[in-house]
Formats: sequence, C-alpha cells, structure tokens
Amino acid sequence: METLTVELGERSYPIYIGQGLLDNGDLLTRHLGGTSVVVVTNETVGPLYLERVMAALGDRRKSAVTLPDGEAYKTLATVNDVFTALLERQVDRRATLIALGGGVVGDITGFAAACYQRGIAFIQVPTTLLAQVDSSVGGKTGVNHPLGKNMIGAFHQPRAVVIDTDTLLTLPERELAAGLAEVVKYGLIGDAPFFAWLEAHMPDLLKREPGALAHAIRRSCENKAAVVAADERESGQRALLNLGHTFGHAIETGVGYGDWLHGEAVACGMVMAARLSQQLGWLEADAVGRIRALLQQAGLPTEPPSELSPERFLELMAVDKKAIEGRLRLVLLNAIGEAVVTADFDPAVLRHVLAGEDTG
Amino acid sequence: METLTVELGERSYPIYIGQGLLDNGDLLTRHLGGTSVVVVTNETVGPLYLERVMAALGDRRKSAVTLPDGEAYKTLATVNDVFTALLERQVDRRATLIALGGGVVGDITGFAAACYQRGIAFIQVPTTLLAQVDSSVGGKTGVNHPLGKNMIGAFHQPRAVVIDTDTLLTLPERELAAGLAEVVKYGLIGDAPFFAWLEAHMPDLLKREPGALAHAIRRSCENKAAVVAADERESGQRALLNLGHTFGHAIETGVGYGDWLHGEAVACGMVMAARLSQQLGWLEADAVGRIRALLQQAGLPTEPPSELSPERFLELMAVDKKAIEGRLRLVLLNAIGEAVVTADFDPAVLRHVLAGEDTG
Repeated sequence: METLTVELGERSYPIYIGQGLLDNGDLLTRHLGGTSVVVVTNETVGPLYLERVMAALGDRRKSAVTLPDGEAYKTLATVNDVFTALLERQVDRRATLIALGGGVVGDITGFAAACYQRGIAFIQVPTTLLAQVDSSVGGKTGVNHPLGKNMIGAFHQPRAVVIDTDTLLTLPERELAAGLAEVVKYGLIGDAPFFAWLEAHMPDLLKREPGALAHAIRRSCENKAAVVAADERESGQRALLNLGHTFGHAIETGVGYGDWLHGEAVACGMVMAARLSQQLGWLEADAVGRIRALLQQAGLPTEPPSELSPERFLELMAVDKKAIEGRLRLVLLNAIGEAVVTADFDPAVLRHVLAGEDTG
Repeated sequence: METLTVELGERSYPIYIGQGLLDNGDLLTRHLGGTSVVVVTNETVGPLYLERVMAALGDRRKSAVTLPDGEAYKTLATVNDVFTALLERQVDRRATLIALGGGVVGDITGFAAACYQRGIAFIQVPTTLLAQVDSSVGGKTGVNHPLGKNMIGAFHQPRAVVIDTDTLLTLPERELAAGLAEVVKYGLIGDAPFFAWLEAHMPDLLKREPGALAHAIRRSCENKAAVVAADERESGQRALLNLGHTFGHAIETGVGYGDWLHGEAVACGMVMAARLSQQLGWLEADAVGRIRALLQQAGLPTEPPSELSPERFLELMAVDKKAIEGRLRLVLLNAIGEAVVTADFDPAVLRHVLAGEDTG
C-alpha cells in the first residue's frame, strides 16, 4: 500500500492506494469521528462491494444508503433523499459518511456531509478511475442544476481517501477510458515526463495491468494534490485543473447530462483547447497531434458533437463558472506539460475553432 | 452609527448599527466583491424597503429576488429557487448576495451564498430584532427539513452586517417580542448586568425607544460576537447560545413550523431550562421567577403547548443536533448570567419538568 498526504493544514488528509483495501477494516475505521457510520453507494457499485465494506467496518452502528446510478441523479433532490435517510435514522453530527462509488456518489455524499447539520465528516472510497484521480482529491463536492453543471456545492475535505485498485477490474471499458482522460490531463498541465510515460504505457493501462494503474493513479493524485495544496480555493493555480473542462461542460450541458461521460467531454475539450492554443500560435502542431493520438488510443472522443453550433457552444461556455464578470477565461497550452489560465485571446479565433474551421 | 467587529481572522466582518443605514450607499457597497449584486428579500419586507436599498446600491449590475414570507418556506426548495434565479441571470461567482429581511431570509440567502458555485459573498441587512441580534451574527445559515429544524446548512460568514434600527418601527408586536427573547437570552447566558438593565428598561423597548433598542442590539451583538469569536465551529462555548433552543426546537417541530415563532419557542424553552435547573438544585427559585416575569412582561409565552406529551417532547429533543451519540446535552443555568452545557443530569428530572410536575 502507498500513502500520500494532501497538505491542507488542519484539514490535511491521507490518500491510501493499494490492492484489497476495501477489506482493510483498520484503514476504513481509523478516520471515523464518532461511533456511527453511514455508507452511501449506488445500485451498481453496492451489489459489488457494499457487503465487504460493511463487514470491514466491524461491530459499530452502521447502515447504508443506496442511490440510483448516474449523473442524471446528481441533483439537490438526491441529496435531500440522503438527508431524509440520515434524519430517519437519527444520525447525529458526530457520524461519518463513507462515499463508496464513482464521482457522482462522491460528489453527492461529500455535499450531503458538508450540509448535514452544517457539516459532518466523510471518507471517500472511489471505485472508478475518474473518481480515484479526480473527484476524490481537492474537496470539491456538489450537484448539478438544470441550468448548469456543478453549480451547487461546497468545499468540504474528506478525512481520508481509500483507493482499492482492484475495483477497476469491474469497471466498464468506457468508464476506464473516461478516467484516463483525467490522467492524461495531469501530464498536459504540468508533467511532460508523465505524459511521455503514458504514451509508452497506454496499452498496459488498457489491459488494467495493476502496476501501471497504481503508478498512473499515484502520479495523478500527486499532481493534483500539489496543485490543490498550493491553492485550496481555486483563485489561481487550481484553475489549471479545468483544462478541457469549460469546453467539456458545454458539451455535457448541450447534449444533456448523461449522453457523454464527463471524462469523454473533457478529452474532447482538451483537444479543443490544444487546437485553440495552436491557432493562437502558442502550441506546435506536432503536440496537438500527440495529444489527439494518445486520447484516441485510450478510446476517447476528440471531436465535439456535430449538433452543437458555435453560437450554442459560446452561450454554454459563458454561463460556466470560469467566466468572470463576462470575460471568458480558459486553460490553454504553451506546450505539453505547460498549461496557462488566460482570458487574453481573440474570441474570433475561439469561434473559428468551435466552427471546426481550423482542422479542414 | 456604531460599529463593532466580529473577530474571525481573515473572515472578520463589521456590524454597523444605526438609524437610516438602508439609504447609506457607501456602507452597502463598501463590501461588495465584484460589480454585480442580487438582493434577496421577501414579499413582506420588499415593499417596505427594497426600493430604497436598490437606490442606495447606485449604478451597478443589480437585481432582486422576492421570496414568499414565512418559516414554512425555509426549505431546500426555496434555496433552489434562488439558485434558478441566479443562473437565469448568469450571476457569476464574484457576485454578492444581500439578505434584506428577517432571520428566514438571512438563513436562506446565506445558505444559497454558501452553496452557489461552491460559495460567493453575502451581506446581511436584517430587518427584524431577532435577525439583528441572532441570525446575522455567527455565520450559521441553513434551512429546515420536514424531519428537523435547521438540519441542512453551512457555516458561511457574511462580509458585513448592516442594522438599520428604523426598520423595527414597522415590525409587528409579536415579532418584536420574539426578538426580545433572544436579547434576554444573552443576559441569562453570561451578562447578569444586562439582564438587570433589561428588567429596568423593558417598557422602553416595548415602546421602541430608539436609544434603548440600539443599546439592547449592541449588547446582544457584543455578547454573541464574543462567544462566536471564541468558538467559531460550535464545539464548546458556542453551544451556550442554544439556551432554550433544544426545548424550543422540539416545540416548533411538535406543533408544526409556523405556529410558534422561533423566539416564542426559545422563551418558553428558557423557562423550561430554568425550571429543570431549579429542580436539579442548581438555580434559585427566585431566579426562575425573575426569568419568567421578564419574558412575560415582553409578551412571550412561558408554558409549553399542552398537546406535547413528555414522551413526544423527549423524542423530538433526541433528534436535535445537540444530542451527541445518544446522550442529550442541554444548556442549563447555575445563576442568571451563568449558563453551562451539560449532559450530566438525571433524565427522570427532565421528564418530571416536561410533565409539568415541578410547577404544581
């Protein structure tokens, strides 16, 4: 087992990565606040792993809440269902929630923990690659609103993150790929050697070779933890983590939540950011090609849905929370491993890229 | 105008108290984050004061959201309505919300600010005595759940609190009294001289004599600010502020939200806490009499609703968030001006008091 620490002063917490950690009762119970614990999972992950986690929690007051599966349920209504379950069981403010599932379960559970009785403890047990390398690190929790993705939420740090790499063996291929999009993102933002490593080891990752997966998760978590530790509230550097996300959110919203996986939209968004960077003269054409090729190798889409017009795209990007007082800020690339947050680009060039006129 | 500061490190904020502050544009705009501002009010307060506040905000991007009036609307659904309004107007994360109204408007607006795009700025402009001395200080925000009061929420500090004492001239008598319950509470918790001052000046307060009101608000805010500054997260000393509240919440929940005003329930709850303290041998009978008399003079109820059986009372108190791992903690009194948080009492004596068997 490997352990790394997200340094956030009194809110610092450990990330454990290893095989078979779901059965590690000592690890799971080490960070519980009071004596009572509620595991929140969904109808897909629950049947696979809930029984083992409940067994590992041993002899204490414990129960489970099973949510429907899917981004479509990442709503305030689902969070309210969690509140109802907690109140029906008279769960008090010293209790701990455990999020057992992917990013949606983590976001909902974390937000429920942030707001239940004005904040209780929670532990992340992410079971998808995406959640392991993204949503479980950084304290972002929240839900969607019909008018915008992730528009309702809170910063709420977990007490610990427990990553059992064995859970990836049951992950559908498409979701593995979606997670790999975020893994690639860390290379693009600030870790060129990791990007090169991914180019060499993508076949191993797709074969779910345990050593390769563990390395990719660890490097991703380290990269993200470093950024988050430097900038907990996303005022500056943390915005780099949104590479591909402003384009990606527009795609997710434009086609309706659920049609595209988050990671798929981000993959496409990263290619669009790279194309825009190239058109601005900041990034070499060869780099754009390497980025597109690596994502395609991972089985990810690199072209936006044809039904989204440039005008609709721009409209959807403008409501994104990365827009500050009307000026659209994007994460763009100077090189592989060198991302930058900027509003200093010609909107005409953006429109050109959205219209696909750069690739003809 | 008087100014006091709630000391919370980088989250410190000022409380301004004075006449005519609603028209003070400099004061209202001094603490705005970006250029855009949304005033949240309700259908009762809006017609009285909204136009003046909008005028004072001058020439900037501004709009208003008007909520229905009443504790019954302090729900997640109403908060979601605020989110919808903000998203429809493409309000970004640099915007500031202004809560113009009583405690319900403040709680809803503060919670909406805490969760909108994971947290934006807000300013409290409380227009009821209760909100001025209670909900506007301390950063508690949130809403009710059908299964419990204030069970969903966040700690989110305002950037400033602007208290215009003139707003109390339009306050219904019953709401003035409800606010006085919280004022009396500060005397009981830790300020015996203030309690004695209130005994001498209750007639002036009921006549809404401006000087008396300003003094009462200021002393209340100072008392609360001192407690909150010492203990922002309510782990210890801050729990003293819940004097009368565990009984009071049970009353509010038991009879259905809205029948009793919060302050009325707290007044009754404080008398019950005093009676329990007396039965335990901690508080003199004379003190119980003074407390009951002062609250009755303010026009407040001091007897619980007869429809609440002792069993139902206990059941409702047990779900209250002040219950830690099953042990019920209450705020009780050793003397006027000397409150204590304790779980160290005989439940049989509590049952005796709930049954009204101490006053026969």
